[in-house]
Amino acid sequence: MAGYQTNLRLTLPLTCVILEVILIILFAVLVEYDHETDAKLWHKHLLQHNDSNYNNDFYYRYPSFQDVHVMIFVGFGFLMTFLQRYGFSSVAFNFLIAAFALQWATLMQGFFHGMHGGKIHIGVESMINADFCTGSVLISFGALLGKTSPVQLLLMAVFEVTLFATNEYILLSILQAKDAGGSMTIHTFGAYFGLVVARVLYRPQLDKSKHKNCSVYHSDLFAMIGTIYLWMFWPSFNSAITAHGDDQHRTVMNTYYSLAACTLATFAMSSLVGPGGKLDMVHIQNAALAGGVAVGTAGEMMLTPFGSMAVGFLAGTISTLGYKFLSPVMEKKLKIQDTCGVHNLHGMPGILGAVVGAVTASLATREVYGDGMEDVFPEIYAGNFSASEQGVRQAISLAVTLGMALVGGVIVGFILKLPIYSGPPDTICFEDAIYWEVPGEMESQEELGTVMSEEVQKPLNS
Amino acid sequence: MAGYQTNLRLTLPLTCVILEVILIILFAVLVEYDHETDAKLWHKHLLQHNDSNYNNDFYYRYPSFQDVHVMIFVGFGFLMTFLQRYGFSSVAFNFLIAAFALQWATLMQGFFHGMHGGKIHIGVESMINADFCTGSVLISFGALLGKTSPVQLLLMAVFEVTLFATNEYILLSILQAKDAGGSMTIHTFGAYFGLVVARVLYRPQLDKSKHKNCSVYHSDLFAMIGTIYLWMFWPSFNSAITAHGDDQHRTVMNTYYSLAACTLATFAMSSLVGPGGKLDMVHIQNAALAGGVAVGTAGEMMLTPFGSMAVGFLAGTISTLGYKFLSPVMEKKLKIQDTCGVHNLHGMPGILGAVVGAVTASLATREVYGDGMEDVFPEIYAGNFSASEQGVRQAISLAVTLGMALVGGVIVGFILKLPIYSGPPDTICFEDAIYWEVPGEMESQEELGTVMSEEVQKPLNS
Amino acid sequence: MAGYQTNLRLTLPLTCVILEVILIILFAVLVEYDHETDAKLWHKHLLQHNDSNYNNDFYYRYPSFQDVHVMIFVGFGFLMTFLQRYGFSSVAFNFLIAAFALQWATLMQGFFHGMHGGKIHIGVESMINADFCTGSVLISFGALLGKTSPVQLLLMAVFEVTLFATNEYILLSILQAKDAGGSMTIHTFGAYFGLVVARVLYRPQLDKSKHKNCSVYHSDLFAMIGTIYLWMFWPSFNSAITAHGDDQHRTVMNTYYSLAACTLATFAMSSLVGPGGKLDMVHIQNAALAGGVAVGTAGEMMLTPFGSMAVGFLAGTISTLGYKFLSPVMEKKLKIQDTCGVHNLHGMPGILGAVVGAVTASLATREVYGDGMEDVFPEIYAGNFSASEQGVRQAISLAVTLGMALVGGVIVGFILKLPIYSGPPDTICFEDAIYWEVPGEMESQEELGTVMSEEVQKPLNS
Repeated sequence: MAGYQTNLRLTLPLTCVILEVILIILFAVLVEYDHETDAKLWHKHLLQHNDSNYNNDFYYRYPSFQDVHVMIFVGFGFLMTFLQRYGFSSVAFNFLIAAFALQWATLMQGFFHGMHGGKIHIGVESMINADFCTGSVLISFGALLGKTSPVQLLLMAVFEVTLFATNEYILLSILQAKDAGGSMTIHTFGAYFGLVVARVLYRPQLDKSKHKNCSVYHSDLFAMIGTIYLWMFWPSFNSAITAHGDDQHRTVMNTYYSLAACTLATFAMSSLVGPGGKLDMVHIQNAALAGGVAVGTAGEMMLTPFGSMAVGFLAGTISTLGYKFLSPVMEKKLKIQDTCGVHNLHGMPGILGAVVGAVTASLATREVYGDGMEDVFPEIYAGNFSASEQGVRQAISLAVTLGMALVGGVIVGFILKLPIYSGPPDTICFEDAIYWEVPGEMESQEELGTVMSEEVQKPLNS
Repeated sequence: MAGYQTNLRLTLPLTCVILEVILIILFAVLVEYDHETDAKLWHKHLLQHNDSNYNNDFYYRYPSFQDVHVMIFVGFGFLMTFLQRYGFSSVAFNFLIAAFALQWATLMQGFFHGMHGGKIHIGVESMINADFCTGSVLISFGALLGKTSPVQLLLMAVFEVTLFATNEYILLSILQAKDAGGSMTIHTFGAYFGLVVARVLYRPQLDKSKHKNCSVYHSDLFAMIGTIYLWMFWPSFNSAITAHGDDQHRTVMNTYYSLAACTLATFAMSSLVGPGGKLDMVHIQNAALAGGVAVGTAGEMMLTPFGSMAVGFLAGTISTLGYKFLSPVMEKKLKIQDTCGVHNLHGMPGILGAVVGAVTASLATREVYGDGMEDVFPEIYAGNFSASEQGVRQAISLAVTLGMALVGGVIVGFILKLPIYSGPPDTICFEDAIYWEVPGEMESQEELGTVMSEEVQKPLNS
Repeated sequence: MAGYQTNLRLTLPLTCVILEVILIILFAVLVEYDHETDAKLWHKHLLQHNDSNYNNDFYYRYPSFQDVHVMIFVGFGFLMTFLQRYGFSSVAFNFLIAAFALQWATLMQGFFHGMHGGKIHIGVESMINADFCTGSVLISFGALLGKTSPVQLLLMAVFEVTLFATNEYILLSILQAKDAGGSMTIHTFGAYFGLVVARVLYRPQLDKSKHKNCSVYHSDLFAMIGTIYLWMFWPSFNSAITAHGDDQHRTVMNTYYSLAACTLATFAMSSLVGPGGKLDMVHIQNAALAGGVAVGTAGEMMLTPFGSMAVGFLAGTISTLGYKFLSPVMEKKLKIQDTCGVHNLHGMPGILGAVVGAVTASLATREVYGDGMEDVFPEIYAGNFSASEQGVRQAISLAVTLGMALVGGVIVGFILKLPIYSGPPDTICFEDAIYWEVPGEMESQEELGTVMSEEVQKPLNS
């Protein structure tokens, strides 16, 4: 245990304060309200276009934003509380790095999405994009859960947000790929980036913390809060930044049916491979969500409801089998210790989603999309690409994403390996007490409770 | 215990896969995007009517849909986690049968609501209706909680959804009854159907599992998550498919005040009948919701705020007293083992709601409703019915619903009684371990946790 | 323990029934649907203005209302479940007094906001205002948590709602102050009112219940559900009743960034002052929310994103340090036993918010706000006030609020001190068993559970 310094007193406050001060300064210099949030500009717009306050985009994006926001903070946060003694860290470090990442993402994405006279303009759409980028960081966090300090996680977020914004720019602006729900930009990128970092941070003696790397009864129920919220709001996630009208409406429906089919596949597979036919909470908590990931790219396209269901069913199957058979192999052979199994929930289903997106795009015809083609595939509509070229560009985007994740993950992994971030030793991973004041032993308190309540029963009720 | 085969390995995967494959095939053959979700049709509509994307119904129904969705998956799911060792099954079987039922309901309701050239058209409104139908199945699940296998529940959903859609068609299309929030179609039907199934599946030796048919401290808190979400979003539930404008707005308000009054009645009655004046969590978790059920039919009508409050107050009173005095009698005399007390939460308040709806409808006048009569009572507005005829039709609808539930419940009960669905024996009901890999004993792990964290305190923090 | 009568059988049912009957009578006499919820009036409006149902304000306020509603019932309710044996009371008394307060607030605010021909008109905006007023009562509840009976709390709500509505009327209608998110009307008023009541109800022997006035592992996780929901939906809270268009949009963004910055400050400070650099759940659960309180007044103004972040950072810092250093002093020296530390979360940040609001208002210029000035500062726009006069009026509003809270708190405190409300003795505070039927001992049930599940493993799976 020599060399391990897990005291956060210096490292965490310093990191938080420095990062926040930099953010505030950069926001002061670079960030402005956009024309829908600025009092003067919006009222000028109202006058000039004889428009109505009811047409402010706020009313057509904010409910979606709030659903995404719930997924980021409750969904991801509680999904990771499944560990028996890591609930404080799961939900609170998720909270911390998300609160940082959304600010930093505003700047990075604003920079790439185009400055306006040297300024970044922000509104509800930039808030959704910032939450999306944050989601990617939280996926990577899932691979590292229990084995990293909050300082490492904040540092990872600094780099990952930057790489995310770069990759997103290459895909959406240079390659003109479509990826509204982020099968590639969010899920594939976040998962493989995190897995590579986990590989670099490989802990050969993690077995010593093995007895903590599992759930207890109530921690599994807390995790189900996360699962259910992710599942319910995934239609809002995939549709949050698609074009208004039929596009958002259709994306929601495709995702809804994909997830429903995925859930049946997950229960089927979990029972099929479980000892004695028993279901495994790990599968239900995670694999049932793969259907949302797998229609992240194609959800806005004319995938059809039954197409969505077929994709969802496949995703649930792959994901459950991945948890059962692939994860143990990856840990043993590839030395990738993937705490939450993000490879099964975000990695493989993300790639599936990218492939489904490429195929669906390459089959797009004017006959099916009508004038709606302009919203979904503006380049095909404009005659700049053929459908098959769009498909090829989607496929290239997947390759670029994987490349960025792998190279970026290696570099960031080595940066995070420096022994200066108050990380835990192998023997005390998955343990809140290392970073938290944990309330005293429950047993004795509960005994007291019982005694007290027996006292209460009698003398007072008359 | 002879004859009990609780292994799900064959039965559950087979059921899930067969059902999902049938669903995918039927969706492929029968289901199409409606004109608001189809790219081509919507853009044609935009051109032809010079309309705006902002007028896509998505923006006026989806927030309500998401609230309903939360009620179905979090509300019902967590409400049933009150049992000490059945939390996994409660929330996850709720998840499974809901994911199935919403797909199947899309087909059944689409079939009855009118096909378009042999096709079922789907959009946000069909999603809401599918969730509503699912709610009915989950109410029935409440009566059977802890005593059924997931295979039985899926099979029940197959039949119940079909009957629900038939009953709904008779009420809304043939009888021209109004029931936007489903006091009859959802609550009364779901409750009495479930109670009759529970009667047929009566378990004479259930006493042997009695020690598990109760809550522990934290399981009651998990259940309160369900309660509170149901309570908060009930206004959205009752208003989700009412007409736009004043109708949705008014339904929300009526439900809001009904629930508030119901809550005060519940606390009053619970303390009044509790030993030593003590409150009972079962009442708070359930009876406080009866106010939402009881304005399910009349909520869209001009019930007035104080009328809503009076109905809510009555519903909370009846429901709490039902839990205290009626449920034990029903179990002993009628042999109906109603795990969640759905008779008190959905059954009696549902009938109350139907009666309130019939009375309110029969009092409708043009003077009160003005031109708004067209939305609430189109047949009265068109001069086809008198108000009292509308009232009579509402009353007939209640009778039809009860008849359908009773007959349907008997038939389905006997189908579910076959010993081939991996159901639990009487001695091991209300127990997750029968279908789930349950995490090892908590005690020993927590001891380890304590030891570990003591270790942590000292050497690492320097 | 002589003289303590904690049996609720008479007091609670009587209080609930009397209050609800009065409410129903007053609603019957005084309350009417407004022109957007009344069938006749809305359809008349549609005809006269050739308007669309899609322009009913329901669609532009209800999603915000639902977010506020979640904060009131889940946010406040679960935030207070941190106590180890007071979870039932926390979430359920919160539920009870909120259900009462929102009805009573409808009347009180309706009375002050202006009657229409002797009638109070209600719609979605009055529902939001009622929930806001309820929030204030729940803040006061936080200071009294664990030491009061539900009868006392209901009585407090009766008085506090009345005082809240009076103070709100003085601030918004007489002084023409702006306070959309309620830094003054809700947070400052609720906190100081509650603190004064706590002072009057000082319990010298509360030490005897000390062992219960703390959390256990899972109770802290339940509390985090409350925290996260409050954090996520605070942007909706602050923007719920601001003007449509840029105002709501901007308020949301300012709050979003303020909270993000506040979170980083909270983690930094918590670790800095924690023993061994360890984080404290109390800080994360509470202080991370101070950023929402602190932009409650200025959030709708042109505070700029970086300005919001600076305010949030300051609020998180002050609040965390308050929990660490100020609360113990207040208890010892001032005899204020503030269970939830509402002084740190709502009191000081509320005052900060009022000051930030006054300063920001006094800096308002036509150049920055353009025509948007009319929505934010109608009196400055109309030329009735200068910006600095608006600032002065904001400052006076803070003083008035503090005065109302202090005087009102003293009076109400003494009323609540009468020994007739079934309050708990000093020795059994923070204990559910005094008012609740608490489920039996967990230990033995879990043992049974383990035994049973071992049985299950073997004979049944074949």
